[in-house]
Amino acid sequence: MTGPLRIALAGLGTVGAGVIRLIEENRPLIARRAGRAIEIVAVSARDKARDRGVDLSGYRWCDDMTALSAADNVDVVVELVGGSEGPALELARGALARGKAFVTANKAMVAHHGMELASLAEEAGLAFKYEAAVAGGIPVIKGLREGAAANRIERVYGILNGTCNYILSEMEEKGGDFDDVLKDAQSKGFAEADPAFDIDGVDAAHKLSILASLCFGTKLDFDGVAMRGIRKILAADIAQARALGYRIRLIGHAEIDGENGDACLFQRVSPRLVSKSHPLAHVTGATNAVVAEGNFSGRLLFQGAGAGDKPTASAVVADIVDIARGETGPAFAMAAADLEEMPRAPSGHRMGQVYLRMTVADRPGVLAEIAAAMRDAGVSIESLIQKEVADGSALIAMVTHECREQAIADTLQALAGSDSLIGEPMVMHLLRG
Amino acid sequence: MTGPLRIALAGLGTVGAGVIRLIEENRPLIARRAGRAIEIVAVSARDKARDRGVDLSGYRWCDDMTALSAADNVDVVVELVGGSEGPALELARGALARGKAFVTANKAMVAHHGMELASLAEEAGLAFKYEAAVAGGIPVIKGLREGAAANRIERVYGILNGTCNYILSEMEEKGGDFDDVLKDAQSKGFAEADPAFDIDGVDAAHKLSILASLCFGTKLDFDGVAMRGIRKILAADIAQARALGYRIRLIGHAEIDGENGDACLFQRVSPRLVSKSHPLAHVTGATNAVVAEGNFSGRLLFQGAGAGDKPTASAVVADIVDIARGETGPAFAMAAADLEEMPRAPSGHRMGQVYLRMTVADRPGVLAEIAAAMRDAGVSIESLIQKEVADGSALIAMVTHECREQAIADTLQALAGSDSLIGEPMVMHLLRG
Repeated sequence: MTGPLRIALAGLGTVGAGVIRLIEENRPLIARRAGRAIEIVAVSARDKARDRGVDLSGYRWCDDMTALSAADNVDVVVELVGGSEGPALELARGALARGKAFVTANKAMVAHHGMELASLAEEAGLAFKYEAAVAGGIPVIKGLREGAAANRIERVYGILNGTCNYILSEMEEKGGDFDDVLKDAQSKGFAEADPAFDIDGVDAAHKLSILASLCFGTKLDFDGVAMRGIRKILAADIAQARALGYRIRLIGHAEIDGENGDACLFQRVSPRLVSKSHPLAHVTGATNAVVAEGNFSGRLLFQGAGAGDKPTASAVVADIVDIARGETGPAFAMAAADLEEMPRAPSGHRMGQVYLRMTVADRPGVLAEIAAAMRDAGVSIESLIQKEVADGSALIAMVTHECREQAIADTLQALAGSDSLIGEPMVMHLLRG
Repeated sequence: MTGPLRIALAGLGTVGAGVIRLIEENRPLIARRAGRAIEIVAVSARDKARDRGVDLSGYRWCDDMTALSAADNVDVVVELVGGSEGPALELARGALARGKAFVTANKAMVAHHGMELASLAEEAGLAFKYEAAVAGGIPVIKGLREGAAANRIERVYGILNGTCNYILSEMEEKGGDFDDVLKDAQSKGFAEADPAFDIDGVDAAHKLSILASLCFGTKLDFDGVAMRGIRKILAADIAQARALGYRIRLIGHAEIDGENGDACLFQRVSPRLVSKSHPLAHVTGATNAVVAEGNFSGRLLFQGAGAGDKPTASAVVADIVDIARGETGPAFAMAAADLEEMPRAPSGHRMGQVYLRMTVADRPGVLAEIAAAMRDAGVSIESLIQKEVADGSALIAMVTHECREQAIADTLQALAGSDSLIGEPMVMHLLRG
C-alpha cells in the first residue's frame, strides 16, 4: 500500500453528499479494492451552512471553489457542480493545469469541452474521468472503453434519460396525458421544476455525443445531434403503439454511416416505437440502458439506475478507484489527437419503418389527400387506424412499410399547410428486436 | 507509442482462430485504442496441419505448447487450450514464472486455480486476466472489477450458460421435451456432443465461483457451489411456469449471507422460475446476462453473447488491450492476500417461494398425503394444478407461499419412499422482479 489518494470535492448537492457517504460507508472495502486509502481532504460548495446530512467537519472547507484546483496535498479534484461553463470548467482546467487528476459527473461540460479537457489531461499525463456523466450508476464508459476495446463498434443506442423513461412508463401504465404525468413526476422528484433539458432531449444528447466519441473514435460533436423530445406524445400514441406490439421510448442513437463511401457520423435523440422483442422495450421507470454493437462482441447491453445520488456516487468513486489503481489511460479510449473529425451524416437515405400520427379534420377527402401524398412520395402503409377524437376531428395513426426517411419528409412537406391537418403530425421511427 | 505488445497464443480452436482474425481485422483500431501495436509472434496447437481458415505463416510455430512460456520476445501468453489442469495450467504457471502476462478464457482453470495464479501474478507484478472466462463477450469482469469497485456487492446472479438458455428457450418456444431439444441443439452446434458440463450446471458453477470471488472479495470456492442442471425439466414444467407468468432459466446465484452473524458465502446453480417482470425472463437463446446488486449502484445488468468464437475473442483481446495500456491491477479486484476465506452458507433458513412438481399415482388419497406432508412442514400452497398425464399417473404442479427452504426439504423427506410418488419431485425456486 502506498499513501492515501487525496480528494478535493467541489459541489455538495445530493450527488456530492452521496460521494461522501459512499467513501465513508465503504471505506475499508474501497481501500482493499483500490490498494490504498481514499481520503477526502477538502470540500467546497456555495453554501457552507446548509444541512446535507453528512458531517463535513473532518474536511478543509474552501469558500472559493476554484481554489480547490490550487490546493496543496490534493491528488484528485472531483467536480459535481454542473453547468457546461463557469466554475465547473474553470475548475477542470485549473486542476489539470496544476497536476491534479480530474473526475466529473458533468455531462454538459464533457459534451461541450471534453476534447479540450482530454488533451489537457493527456499532455499533463493525468487522468480525466467521467463515468458518472453517462447513464448514472451503470459502468458503461468503462464497459465500452475497456470491455469493447477490441471492437469496431458500429452502433450505440439506448435509453439515456431516466426522467423521460419514467414519464413514458407512467403514461403507458396509467394511461395519462403528458402534462399530467409530468406534473406527477415533478411532485415525486423524478422531474426537475424546469424539465426542458430532460424532456426535450438535451440531456440525452449530451450523453449520446459522449458515447459516440468513445465508441467510434470520433471527436465530440454535440451540435451534430439531431434532437426531439417527448412533449408532444399523446396518450393515444402510447395506446396505438401498445396495440401494435410496441412501447414508446426516448432513444439516443449514434452510428457510423458509410452509405456514401466516406464514413459519416449519425447522431439522433428521438422518441421511437420499440418492438416488445427488443430488450429496451422492457426497461421501465427511471432506469437507463445502453446497447453497443461491436463487430466481434455482437450486441452488448448495459442496464441500471440512470440517476440518483447513490448510483451516481458509485460511478464517481469507481473513477477515483481507477485512479488509485493507476489505471488511467486516455479519456476517450485513444489519444485525443487520434480522434477523427467526421462529417455529419444526412438522414434522408436511412431506411426504416415509421409511425405517423395526425390529427385531422373529420370530413370527406382527408384520408384521400393524405394517402395521395404518401403514394406520391412512395410510402406504403402497413397498418392504419382512424378514430374520432372530438367534434369535427379525428386521429389517424399508421405504421408504414420500410421506406427512406426522405420519403416521409416529402409526405409531410406535401401536406404542410393543408387545412385537413390540425396541428403538427407526429413521426416516430421504429426500433425492432 | 511504445513498441508492439508481443503475444504468444496457445490453442487454435474456434476461439484461437477468432482471436487471430480479430487482431488482424481490427489492427489499426486496436493500435489506436491500445496506444501501441498488438502483434501475435508465436502460436501453438496440437495439430499444425489442420485448416483453421486463418493464415499462420507470419507466426513462429511451437510444437511444444508449454515452450511458449519460455519463448523470447513474448510479453503476453494467451491460453485457449482449456482443461483445468495439464498443459493449460503448466503454461499459466510457466508464463507467470518467466515474466509474461497471462490471459485466458479457461473458466475451469480459473475456478480451480485462480487463487494460485493471482498470487503468482501479483508477486511477479504481472497481469493475469480472464474476461473471456465468464459470460463470453460481455465485459462483466471489467464492469464489476472496475465499474462497481466502490460498492459492497450484496448479490450476483444470472444466466451463465448459453447452451442451457438455448435449450430452455427452445423448449418454451416449441413445446418439446428436453431430450429432443438437446439433440436438436447438438445438431445445430449449440450443445456439445458430451453436454454434461453445460446441462448439469458445472460450467455455470465455474463462472459463478469466479464472479463471487470478484464481487465479494472472497477466496474462490468452486467446491462450495451447490449445483443442479436442467436434465429433468419437463415440457409440462415449462408450460406450468408459463401459465403462472414465469419462465424457467438456469440461474447461478451467489450472495453474502449474514443471517447468523458471521458472513457466509452462498453459491448455487439451479433452474428457477423467473417472473416475467424480471429482465432475466426476457433473455432468450444462447445469450448470457449477469445481475449485480451493489449497496450504492443498485441493480446492474450486463447482457450479451455468452459464447461463440467472435464474442469470446472480443473479450480475450480486451484483456490484451488492457495490458497494452498498462491497466493491470489485481485479478480479483484486490490483493490475493486480502481475499477472505468465508464459510459456506447453509440454505435451510433461506426464504422464498418454490415451484414443486410431482408425478403421482392417480388414485384416492395421494393429494391428501402430499398436502398433509406440506402442512406438517409448515408449507402453504399459493396455487396448484393437477392433471392426468398417462394411465394411472397424474402430474401435480404447485407454487408455495414464501417459506424456509428447510420446510420444503422436510416435505420431500416425509414423502420419500411413498409409493404415491412416481420418480423424483422437481423443486425450483422462484426469482421475482
